[in-house]
Amino acid sequence: MPRGHIFGTLRVNPPPSRPFAGVYPIAPTPFTDTGEIDLDGQRRVLDCMVDQGVDGICILANYSEQFLLTDAERDTLAEVCLSHVAGRVPVIVTCSHFSTRIAAERARKAASAGAAMLMLMPPYHGATLRGDEKGTFEHFARVAEAGRLPLMIQDAPLSGVTLSVPFLVRLAREVPAVRYLKVEVPGAAAKLRNLIGEGGELIAGPFDGEESITLMADLDAGATGTMPSALLPDLIKPVLEHHRAGRRQEAAAAYARILPLINFENRQCGLRAAKTVMMEGGVIRSDAVRHPLEPLHPATRKGLLDLTAEVDPLALRWGR
Amino acid sequence: MPRGHIFGTLRVNPPPSRPFAGVYPIAPTPFTDTGEIDLDGQRRVLDCMVDQGVDGICILANYSEQFLLTDAERDTLAEVCLSHVAGRVPVIVTCSHFSTRIAAERARKAASAGAAMLMLMPPYHGATLRGDEKGTFEHFARVAEAGRLPLMIQDAPLSGVTLSVPFLVRLAREVPAVRYLKVEVPGAAAKLRNLIGEGGELIAGPFDGEESITLMADLDAGATGTMPSALLPDLIKPVLEHHRAGRRQEAAAAYARILPLINFENRQCGLRAAKTVMMEGGVIRSDAVRHPLEPLHPATRKGLLDLTAEVDPLALRWGR
Repeated sequence: MPRGHIFGTLRVNPPPSRPFAGVYPIAPTPFTDTGEIDLDGQRRVLDCMVDQGVDGICILANYSEQFLLTDAERDTLAEVCLSHVAGRVPVIVTCSHFSTRIAAERARKAASAGAAMLMLMPPYHGATLRGDEKGTFEHFARVAEAGRLPLMIQDAPLSGVTLSVPFLVRLAREVPAVRYLKVEVPGAAAKLRNLIGEGGELIAGPFDGEESITLMADLDAGATGTMPSALLPDLIKPVLEHHRAGRRQEAAAAYARILPLINFENRQCGLRAAKTVMMEGGVIRSDAVRHPLEPLHPATRKGLLDLTAEVDPLALRWGR
Repeated sequence: MPRGHIFGTLRVNPPPSRPFAGVYPIAPTPFTDTGEIDLDGQRRVLDCMVDQGVDGICILANYSEQFLLTDAERDTLAEVCLSHVAGRVPVIVTCSHFSTRIAAERARKAASAGAAMLMLMPPYHGATLRGDEKGTFEHFARVAEAGRLPLMIQDAPLSGVTLSVPFLVRLAREVPAVRYLKVEVPGAAAKLRNLIGEGGELIAGPFDGEESITLMADLDAGATGTMPSALLPDLIKPVLEHHRAGRRQEAAAAYARILPLINFENRQCGLRAAKTVMMEGGVIRSDAVRHPLEPLHPATRKGLLDLTAEVDPLALRWGR
C-alpha cells in the first residue's frame, strides 16, 4: 500500500482495514432554552445515534452549529463526545477554520482525543475571503500532516470555493491522508462520478451529504457513504444496504418512502429538523438554536412532525 | 438628550462630550515568522500609532486578521492593547461573530477592559449563512445592550449583507447606542449622504473605511471620520483637517499626493501593506501574515516601499 506511509508513525486511531462506508450522520449540538450547551442532552443524542445503527458519527460540523460555538465550547464538545462514544462507532471530527494553523491544531487535538477521521472545508471567511488554489492545497496538506488520520474533504456551497475534480484528484494523490470526499454541491452525482473515474482507488470513500437529498443519484454514481442529519439515519441505512447488494429497486422504493421527509428537512428546516424531532422523541429537552438562527415556525414544526410520524424513525420514539 | 438613557447606568467608559471624529486606523496584529503573536511588537505598533497623531485606534478588525485568531488570542490581544494604550487615545474593539451570544460576550468583556467604542458587523458565515432582517436587527440591539458603549456598525462587502439606509436609520433610532456607521461598500459616498439626510443627528459619526480609498468623496458627502490602515494615518489626518476647516482645495491636494500609495495598498496589498511598511520602519520585526494569506510578492513589496518612500509616513521611520 504505497499510500500507507503517513500512518507509519501513527500511535493512535489505526486506520480501518476496510474503508469507511455507510451512514455517518452529523450529531446536533443541543442547547438549553437559555442557550447553554446541554451536555447531558449531547450524550443522549450520541446514544440515540448509536441505537440508530449508524456506521459512524460526525461532530462539530455545520449541522452541529459549529459556527455558533466558542473555541472553548468546541473543545468541551469534542472531549465529551469522543469519551462518551468511546469507540462504539468511529467519530469524525470537523476541524474547519480559515487559519491553517488553527485548523491544524484542532486536528492534532482531535486525533489525540480519539477521532477516527477528520473533516475539513477549504479556507473561507465571509463573502469574499478565500485561499487561492495553492493556499487551499497547502491548507489541506498541513492539516492532514498535523492530524495523521484519514481526512474527509467537505465540498459544500457554504465555503464559496469551487474544488475542481482535477484539484481534488491531485490532492488525493499527493496527500495520502485525503481518502474521503463529501460532495454536496449542485450536480453532486456527476461530480462524484468524475471523481471516481479520474481518481480511481485514490478515492477510498466518495460520500454525499446535504441530508442525503441526492442519495439515489449519488449511489448510482458510485458513492459508498452518506452524511445526513441525525433525523432518520435508521431509515436511510436500508437504502444503502439494498443498493450495495444490487437490489436497486428496493433501494429506490425505500428512498421514495422517506423522501418527503428528507425534502421537507432539506428545504424547510435545515439543521433544526433533527433537533425538533429529537425533542419530540424525548432525546433532548429543547430544540433551541442559537441566535441569529430562528426557531421553526409552529406551522413548519407541525409539518415536520406530521411527515416524521408517517415514517416513524427511531429519533421520534427513542426517549419516550 | 432623549437617547441618553442607555448610558444611564454606565459605570465605565463615559461617552465623549463631542462625537468621535477624525482618523481611527486599524492596528495590525504582528506575528513572528513562525506565526506566534508578537506582543512586544503589538505594543510598539500602538505606540507608533499614537505618535502618528491618530484620534483613536481600532483593534481586532479584519485588518487585524481577526479571522485568523483563536478566541484565547483575541482575549489576550484585547487586554494587552487596552492596557498598553491606557487611555492615550480612545480604542474601538471589534466584536463581530455570527453568534449573537458570543458577540455580546465579547462586547461585555471589551467594555470592562476599557474600550471606548465597539465595532460590529452583521451576522454572516461563509458564502450562504446570514441573519434575516429581524435577526440582524436583534443582533445589533442585543450586542449594544450587552456592551453599553457607543456602537459602530461596519457596513462592508465581506459580510455579504446589504444594510439598507432605512434599516440603518431605524436601527439608530431604536437602538440609541448605534451612533456610528462605517460605510465601505461600493457607492459609499452616496450611501453616507443618504444616511445623513435620512438619519440626521441620529448619525453622530458617519465614517468611511477601506484604507480611505474613497475619502474625498466621502468627506464631501458629510463623513466626519475615516478608518484606514495604520500605514499613513499621519498623512491622512491633514486631509480631514483641511476639509473640516473649509479648505477643500488643500484637502484635495493633500489627498492627491498620497492617493498613489493608498491605491497601491487598496488594490495590490490589503492588510499586508501596513505590516510591511512597519517592518521596514523598525516598528515590528516581521511582516508575516497567517496562512492561507500569502506574503507579498517581492516585486509588489518593492512597489509598495518605493511609493511609501515618496511620501515618507511616520511608520517608515518610527523605529529607525
